[in-house]
Amino acid sequence: MKPTQFSDMPCPIARSMGRVGDSWSMLILRDAFQGMTRFDEFVKSTGIAPNILTRRLNDLVDNGMLERRLYSEKPPRHEYLLTEMGRSFRPIMFALMNWGNEHFSPDGVRMQLVDRVTGAPAVPVLFDAEAQRPLTEDNYMVAPGPAASDTMRERLANAERRRRERLATAQETA
Amino acid sequence: MKPTQFSDMPCPIARSMGRVGDSWSMLILRDAFQGMTRFDEFVKSTGIAPNILTRRLNDLVDNGMLERRLYSEKPPRHEYLLTEMGRSFRPIMFALMNWGNEHFSPDGVRMQLVDRVTGAPAVPVLFDAEAQRPLTEDNYMVAPGPAASDTMRERLANAERRRRERLATAQETA
Repeated sequence: MKPTQFSDMPCPIARSMGRVGDSWSMLILRDAFQGMTRFDEFVKSTGIAPNILTRRLNDLVDNGMLERRLYSEKPPRHEYLLTEMGRSFRPIMFALMNWGNEHFSPDGVRMQLVDRVTGAPAVPVLFDAEAQRPLTEDNYMVAPGPAASDTMRERLANAERRRRERLATAQETA
Repeated sequence: MKPTQFSDMPCPIARSMGRVGDSWSMLILRDAFQGMTRFDEFVKSTGIAPNILTRRLNDLVDNGMLERRLYSEKPPRHEYLLTEMGRSFRPIMFALMNWGNEHFSPDGVRMQLVDRVTGAPAVPVLFDAEAQRPLTEDNYMVAPGPAASDTMRERLANAERRRRERLATAQETA
């Protein structure tokens, strides 16, 4: 299954995944956020097979997440740097880290976001910078945007209908 | 490459991806958030091949994201419901949607988060609920947690060193 198929879907979640691809790509991006730039660093850090790494790096470059730069002419060697688009992926990386810490760290937290000055661990939540309040399911919904097709509108209307039914059932049984 | 290999890595991002798996799983979760529960609904919505869907649903159940429930005895039919852990994945889904809208919707936004009451589109950012301020790269860093190994500590110290070097270079060339 090629990532481009996801990139062509109308859904922005599918398009995002089409650009990022898979778990290996996510770990390469993680390492790029930690300042790694070179093939050997990625291999050592992730344990990825070199042939898979080559493919994933090419994909990430093609998708605009990484920029390839020659750092040695003889022999020719490249390094990989996050583009601006790549950098904008950081909140998702942070959200994944937080979620992993919450659910899959029964033996304790290994890495976490902390305040640079105080060292206090952060409690990351989604926030609406426009309305200046937490972005909760109760207060926010997924709605069609200006470019939504009829199919998308129907899909989202159905999602809302199902949600209301679920809430009604929950109230009845409560 | 089996998802379990990622689940066993020390990094919480790798562990998260090990549970979610791939782009198809992400779209199944998206549909589950939109209230879909049945095999046929997922097929129709995503265009996924039935044999892949069966595998992904089994993985998501095994990984604790979905719960399988019998809704018809004759013939036996199951539906798939988000578990509490599955529901807690919502912020990542929202972050992916937002990122996709930002970068991969040149022809306009198709679905977006809006305020339920006013209908105003949200501008989702990460926020530290503890310190009550935006979670920016300037103010926050990834630091070792209580359970960090020496390797993890070294890794994160190197990341900080590289960041300082990068900032110093940027200042020199500015």
